Amino acid sequence: MEKGVPMYLVTVLLFALACSLASAFDPSPLQDFCVATKDSDEFVNGKFCNNPKDAKADDFFFSGLDKPGISVARIDFAPYGLNPPHTHPRGTEVIVVLEGTLYVGFVTSNTDNRLFTKVLNKGDVFVFPIGLIHFQWNMGNTDALIFAGLSSQNPGVITIANAVFGANPPINPDVLTKAFQVDKNVINYLEQQFK
Amino acid sequence: MEKGVPMYLVTVLLFALACSLASAFDPSPLQDFCVATKDSDEFVNGKFCNNPKDAKADDFFFSGLDKPGISVARIDFAPYGLNPPHTHPRGTEVIVVLEGTLYVGFVTSNTDNRLFTKVLNKGDVFVFPIGLIHFQWNMGNTDALIFAGLSSQNPGVITIANAVFGANPPINPDVLTKAFQVDKNVINYLEQQFK
Amino acid sequence: MEKGVPMYLVTVLLFALACSLASAFDPSPLQDFCVATKDSDEFVNGKFCNNPKDAKADDFFFSGLDKPGISVARIDFAPYGLNPPHTHPRGTEVIVVLEGTLYVGFVTSNTDNRLFTKVLNKGDVFVFPIGLIHFQWNMGNTDALIFAGLSSQNPGVITIANAVFGANPPINPDVLTKAFQVDKNVINYLEQQFK
Amino acid sequence: MEKGVPMYLVTVLLFALACSLASAFDPSPLQDFCVATKDSDEFVNGKFCNNPKDAKADDFFFSGLDKPGISVARIDFAPYGLNPPHTHPRGTEVIVVLEGTLYVGFVTSNTDNRLFTKVLNKGDVFVFPIGLIHFQWNMGNTDALIFAGLSSQNPGVITIANAVFGANPPINPDVLTKAFQVDKNVINYLEQQFK
Amino acid sequence: MEKGVPMYLVTVLLFALACSLASAFDPSPLQDFCVATKDSDEFVNGKFCNNPKDAKADDFFFSGLDKPGISVARIDFAPYGLNPPHTHPRGTEVIVVLEGTLYVGFVTSNTDNRLFTKVLNKGDVFVFPIGLIHFQWNMGNTDALIFAGLSSQNPGVITIANAVFGANPPINPDVLTKAFQVDKNVINYLEQQFK
Amino acid sequence: MEKGVPMYLVTVLLFALACSLASAFDPSPLQDFCVATKDSDEFVNGKFCNNPKDAKADDFFFSGLDKPGISVARIDFAPYGLNPPHTHPRGTEVIVVLEGTLYVGFVTSNTDNRLFTKVLNKGDVFVFPIGLIHFQWNMGNTDALIFAGLSSQNPGVITIANAVFGANPPINPDVLTKAFQVDKNVINYLEQQFK
Repeated sequence: MEKGVPMYLVTVLLFALACSLASAFDPSPLQDFCVATKDSDEFVNGKFCNNPKDAKADDFFFSGLDKPGISVARIDFAPYGLNPPHTHPRGTEVIVVLEGTLYVGFVTSNTDNRLFTKVLNKGDVFVFPIGLIHFQWNMGNTDALIFAGLSSQNPGVITIANAVFGANPPINPDVLTKAFQVDKNVINYLEQQFK
Repeated sequence: MEKGVPMYLVTVLLFALACSLASAFDPSPLQDFCVATKDSDEFVNGKFCNNPKDAKADDFFFSGLDKPGISVARIDFAPYGLNPPHTHPRGTEVIVVLEGTLYVGFVTSNTDNRLFTKVLNKGDVFVFPIGLIHFQWNMGNTDALIFAGLSSQNPGVITIANAVFGANPPINPDVLTKAFQVDKNVINYLEQQFK
Repeated sequence: MEKGVPMYLVTVLLFALACSLASAFDPSPLQDFCVATKDSDEFVNGKFCNNPKDAKADDFFFSGLDKPGISVARIDFAPYGLNPPHTHPRGTEVIVVLEGTLYVGFVTSNTDNRLFTKVLNKGDVFVFPIGLIHFQWNMGNTDALIFAGLSSQNPGVITIANAVFGANPPINPDVLTKAFQVDKNVINYLEQQFK
Repeated sequence: MEKGVPMYLVTVLLFALACSLASAFDPSPLQDFCVATKDSDEFVNGKFCNNPKDAKADDFFFSGLDKPGISVARIDFAPYGLNPPHTHPRGTEVIVVLEGTLYVGFVTSNTDNRLFTKVLNKGDVFVFPIGLIHFQWNMGNTDALIFAGLSSQNPGVITIANAVFGANPPINPDVLTKAFQVDKNVINYLEQQFK
Repeated sequence: MEKGVPMYLVTVLLFALACSLASAFDPSPLQDFCVATKDSDEFVNGKFCNNPKDAKADDFFFSGLDKPGISVARIDFAPYGLNPPHTHPRGTEVIVVLEGTLYVGFVTSNTDNRLFTKVLNKGDVFVFPIGLIHFQWNMGNTDALIFAGLSSQNPGVITIANAVFGANPPINPDVLTKAFQVDKNVINYLEQQFK
Repeated sequence: MEKGVPMYLVTVLLFALACSLASAFDPSPLQDFCVATKDSDEFVNGKFCNNPKDAKADDFFFSGLDKPGISVARIDFAPYGLNPPHTHPRGTEVIVVLEGTLYVGFVTSNTDNRLFTKVLNKGDVFVFPIGLIHFQWNMGNTDALIFAGLSSQNPGVITIANAVFGANPPINPDVLTKAFQVDKNVINYLEQQFK
């Protein structure tokens, strides 16, 4: 049934709590807040902050606050929309279902690669531990809506299919052929989907 | 206009990510996850975990996962409902407005005790830094709804009025009279509201 | 008896371990030390350090050391002097009584808003957990002296009365009237004490 | 050329610095060391430690020390052996090449899914940032040997192919078909390799 | 002048903020506080806490509070008393001089093994960075008194002379002879002082 | 037997994961990585990073990656070579023996100053807890080789003999005479070895 379904069924709207260019870290704060400067050309770990005297309420609104240690994302699903298998290298995720019915799951690490799945309805909450591969799938023919909290303001996202078969430049096909233990034609076919 | 409005206009539904009895901490995890045991009589920092082999998907659902480092709360406001001035001693808060129009604010520490306020509409996001006093007020005559992410699974809540004038046993009235620099009758009147 | 007692009975002398202008954080150090530059115009998380080759003993003396993760404060009390209810948004406090007799207390979070109090004499030690509202009151007619250690070099101080009734600009009186459940005249009276 | 090469060409010998059953975390230690008890039936975050008086040198030898915050792994490669694309959900990895020539690489997160690769010879060092997908491949027809340090004593390993196509129970084929944008036959073929 | 001066001139009174038997760690708290149980026979990282309902003010008094992340010490010096070269493996130290005049110093790591010294008088504050070798010496013929704050409730103390020449059992004399590049007789002489 | 053995028997090759000039810290990262700029004249906690778009594989190769939270060292021992008693003020160390037979040990803190020793052979692993004094000695008449992982990219090294008897300027001989409880001639003799 997912045939013909366009790719961007899932809209992830991560509220950008940190400027995307500057490298920063998640320690304990030493001031009430640090409003990151927006117009700096420098890349600095530990961002430049504006003079606290110059802070204004808008700095906390969709939000220039540096290092809150947390971020929130709104994820909209079209009917049968999928947020495909991915990991957040730097954050645990907690989701709350606002609308719709979702089938969600995650796989543990190599200890046993177990799959945990659950059908979630409105009001349900589910947790995806840091770094584990997980997915969310709208099972119904209506829109679905979830909110996600992540334990870092820049948790990162690695969509498995894109990172493995759509890397730029591509990963050596010999590596992938051996890793997935299939014929090289299959790898070529997979890589063509992510060009 | 808030006269006659009943007290419990604001429903805060904190999704209980950690058992309330056990003491726990927010470090980096060393396993994929730890599902806290629910039936222990012991109070232990660093909870007892179930055998990972016995974990099941429901353990991640409204959620037994120990130490995710994050929690989410749904906050419902009746018309003109107020989430009164409070602090979270152990967490920064990020909110997202889903319905309604809210007037929100926080006050910085003694450096200057500045008040930052903002009127938020649907889709707006705002950040309240850790430990600072803040409030959210539904300005409209319709219900309002926000979701909050907090940077700890047990951030704590201290409602200022309740902690200061409704402590149990009460704080010595001489302390409060001097602290608020008013007549002792005023302190008595305030304390009576929180008995 | 506190009538007519002037306001600044309590002298808190926080040894300024970090420059007040620069935003900084409390992680684990990667060098023996970082002496923050004093004359920078920039606001930066993760301060500029002087060249370690240029460090001198005075840099560790009343103290330019960046990020020691700790600070100490000397607090002098006049007879019947009060350090009024306040919180440290970013630090746990340990005090040691050197002279005098103090009545101290703190209130737990909303779980039960319990008040814990104790009369402390010379040599006694007491702990105020991070973010909780607490106070110290000199019960005697002689001076008192305590030393406090705080688990951050910039723990912050929020004096409740000042932040709530003396914010700048003032918090909307409707918010405070509802929060403290009293007549608006009482709120006006309280706010006038902190102008 | 990798045809006919048996699967387990890569021997990863992770020196087990923590007991595998107990849940534990990576904070700062408060004692000189904590030797975890080996024979406990309890699962506890924050392990039981032996009485420090009973510690002996063997406790630090292949190593019972709890929470060292670090682990080391020896990885042996047969000729053309591959350590296939994988992530460590809880650790950054640093490797040192002792013997042989390796082709290594990692892919950044969804920002751009860029592939970084490098040919490493004896004495070379390379870093794989936390949570990113990476691989190491012995390019030569002789054995290769590397040592890896990881920034946690239980960094975890998720081999992408196994977690995605070999989860137990399998991930719903509709999810994988949509995620990899290929015919369901291809997914079935891939899943059969990991049964 | 220090000839004939008895050894225990320096009294370090570390206020014991954590039970000495239990292994514990310094993360962020998840409850308002955890009062460690005193009578447990178990050694556990992450201590057993008493039921918070059973806490009383005395638990915060000379102090049963678990994991405050900080400790304070009172150090009394007889005339010409020395707190000999030592390190704190798990804490930065800040001192405040209350009485007397002290000559203090610390040595940086192998980068250059530089000595930083300072004469401190009443009211002076000095910082000793984590893990560096330092000492405090009462230069005068009157008593001296300092208070120290340390950035862990169990920072540890390693007195260099005792650890190197008074270890139990002794370090192999060949190791010490080579390390200090002196005749073995000198090592034997030194070791005899610490038996 | 160690007579006549030249000093630099032990070659510690610490792979320099961080630029030596810039001050930096070990928190959790907020980006995939931060490649520190090499040519900056500024000293900054939280280094300047290059624009991530400009990163190349060589940045991860002997390694410009900022804040990996870990470092590795190769240590080569001549026959009977000694890595003399030292501490790492900011890191726990794990070693793996690749060649030779080593006698290793560490001393606990003042609780009891106990010495833990072990003879290690090829393949053995041993852990030295953060901040404790330890040593490694090649017992045999052949070369030995170990790899060490350290839980910080800048753990620091303090060689006890050098820091105590070779500080620059020298520690006051009265301090050392009293600390080691020996004749001042012995201190002078020791200090002469480290000039």
